Parts: sequence; structure tokens; C-alpha cells
Amino acid sequence: MTGAVQAPDGHSPWTPREAELLSATMKIVRERGYDGLTLDAVAATAKASKATIYRRWPTKAELVLTAFTEGCRSTMAAPATGTLRGDLLRIGELVCAQASAIGALTFEASRNQDLRNAVQGLLLDHRNALIGLALDKAMNRGEVPQGSIGETLRDVLPGYLLFRSVISGRAPTRTTLESLIDEVIVPSLTQGD
Amino acid sequence: MTGAVQAPDGHSPWTPREAELLSATMKIVRERGYDGLTLDAVAATAKASKATIYRRWPTKAELVLTAFTEGCRSTMAAPATGTLRGDLLRIGELVCAQASAIGALTFEASRNQDLRNAVQGLLLDHRNALIGLALDKAMNRGEVPQGSIGETLRDVLPGYLLFRSVISGRAPTRTTLESLIDEVIVPSLTQGD
Repeated sequence: MTGAVQAPDGHSPWTPREAELLSATMKIVRERGYDGLTLDAVAATAKASKATIYRRWPTKAELVLTAFTEGCRSTMAAPATGTLRGDLLRIGELVCAQASAIGALTFEASRNQDLRNAVQGLLLDHRNALIGLALDKAMNRGEVPQGSIGETLRDVLPGYLLFRSVISGRAPTRTTLESLIDEVIVPSLTQGD
Repeated sequence: MTGAVQAPDGHSPWTPREAELLSATMKIVRERGYDGLTLDAVAATAKASKATIYRRWPTKAELVLTAFTEGCRSTMAAPATGTLRGDLLRIGELVCAQASAIGALTFEASRNQDLRNAVQGLLLDHRNALIGLALDKAMNRGEVPQGSIGETLRDVLPGYLLFRSVISGRAPTRTTLESLIDEVIVPSLTQGD
């Protein structure tokens, strides 16, 4: 069972047709990177005309930005596995699934302020919401001592997984994710004080 | 007092003049990125002729690769502050100091296999050596229980700092480094089991 972390208006602002175009865009960004994305490819993949795409998103940056935002929104379901470890594993899997898109956008984001703000804002908002919920529930169950949990500790799970995918070129495996949670994060959280 | 982590041959293979050229190269990579580096700029900064540079490093990739290798080698002094926390702080400072160069090279490395191998090999070797030494000393002092320490836990310090610098655009501060060590890494290491 999962509960939804609410997006600002709680449901998709896009028509099914627009959602298809955005999904095709992210597919191409993941496969070919931002530089490799062309409107022709999006149009061909989604069987749409370029005019349809242009009308809604006049620039490539706007199209990719919207597609990335929509991709994050649509995966914003909060896990509710019943244990801290289970919830963190699900959030980690989600981060790993987004890693290739984030990697593909990171380079372009270094040159494009709007894209950079969006990637960072979405990443931060998304992570904070999901991890905050998982930690609150763990505190309510008594798995983790009550008290404030610092930003760095909240941030290490997605941060280390993205480092592995994007910078170090060693894509995280299931073993990476489990050892990160079992040897690093849960011991830090449950030590108290 | 610091002890040196031995490079393969234990001392610089470069003449002082060559070391100057390599240092100028890394300075420009940090300031302008890989794409922004030109041999003209290296020649001007180091007051050398382009022919001198070409003779030693026939391609830009070889020049940058050598410069990055040399930059890592020359900062491979192992900290010996007397405490685990102190040693980890020093290693963290070192990673932060290298972060802008690593960021500048990450995107080029995604297109250049030789550079990718070098960045990853150097990063991994360098980190493993420094962190392994710090942990061995902490075990000998009784600060950390004897036993094997997994790859992920060894890797989280540089990994999270590089994530902050390169991907999330929130350069780590002294507070970040301290909370990473005090709230995440040291609690995980000292919990034992």
C-alpha cells in the first residue's frame, strides 16, 4: 500500500496526449542525453507533429524541464512498507531509477540556470518529502528515537546513490543499496542523541 | 605530521618545468572546464611555447589526464592528526579541494574512456589508500572495533561530498563535512557488531 506525496495541485496538469509527449522526451533524454534530443525524435517516438510540440513548449529546454518535472511528480508515491529499512529501500530504488535521467541533465544544467534550479528544486523537494515521511513513521513506530534529524543524514541516501551513478561510473547494485542502508544510514539513525 | 601514501615510484616523474605546465593545466580546467581549456591558455599561463607542450603531450586529453594524475599524486599525503575524526576531516577537505576539478572532468569523462578510467582509478585508489590508512590507525588506537569495514562505508565520505559539489550544486561547507563525519560516518563505524 502506498500513499501519495501531494504535488502542488494533487493531480497531473497534463492531458494524456501531453503526458505521452513528456514521457517520450524523458525516454530519449535517458537514452541519448540532452544534446542528443531532437524534436524530430520526440515527434517520431510519440507519433505527433512537431507543431504540436512547439505550440506547448517553444524551446527544447522548456520541453525537457517540463518532462523532468512530470517524471518526478508521477513517481512521488510514498512507500509504506511498514519498516524503516523497507521504506528506505524503496526510496533508494526510486533514486536509482531516476539516476540516468539526472545524469543526462546534470551537464546541461551546468550551463542552464532554469534547468539547474528545476533539477535541484525537484530533487530536494522530492527527497525531503519522501525521506521525511519515512523517518516520521519510523519515529512513530519507535524504530528511531524521537528528535531532529540533520539535513546531511537525510541527504546521504540519494546523494551517495547519485554519486555512484553519475560521477564514479559504478552504478549502484542491490548490494550497494542494502549496505548503504544497513551499514551506514540505519546505524546512524538508531544510535540516538 | 604527515606520512606519504606512496605513488607507484614514490616521487614525481616530472621536471619542475613540466610540473608547472601540469599545474597551469589544472588551474585552467578548474576555472573554465575541459571544453574551455586551450593550449594557448596553458602556454600563456605557464609562459611556455605551445611546441614545448605538444612535444610532451600530443593531445589535449593526454595533457589533462596527466595533469589530473599529477594533481592527485601531489596531494596524496596521508593525514596523521591522532584521531579518526581529525583524519576524516582532513581527507574531506582534500576531496572538497579536488571537487571543482573532478566536476570539470566528469562530463568530458562521460565521452572519453581513457579519461574516465583515469578519473575513476585515481579517485578510487586515492580514496581507498587514505581512508584505509585512517581506519587502520583508528582500529590500532581502539577508536573503532577491529573487523572489516565495507566498501560503501569507506566510500560515503568522498561520495557524498562530490555529490554535493558536482550534482546538487550545493558546495559542501565546513558544517556539511562535520555533520557527515559526526552524524553519519563515525556513528556507523563505532557501532561495532
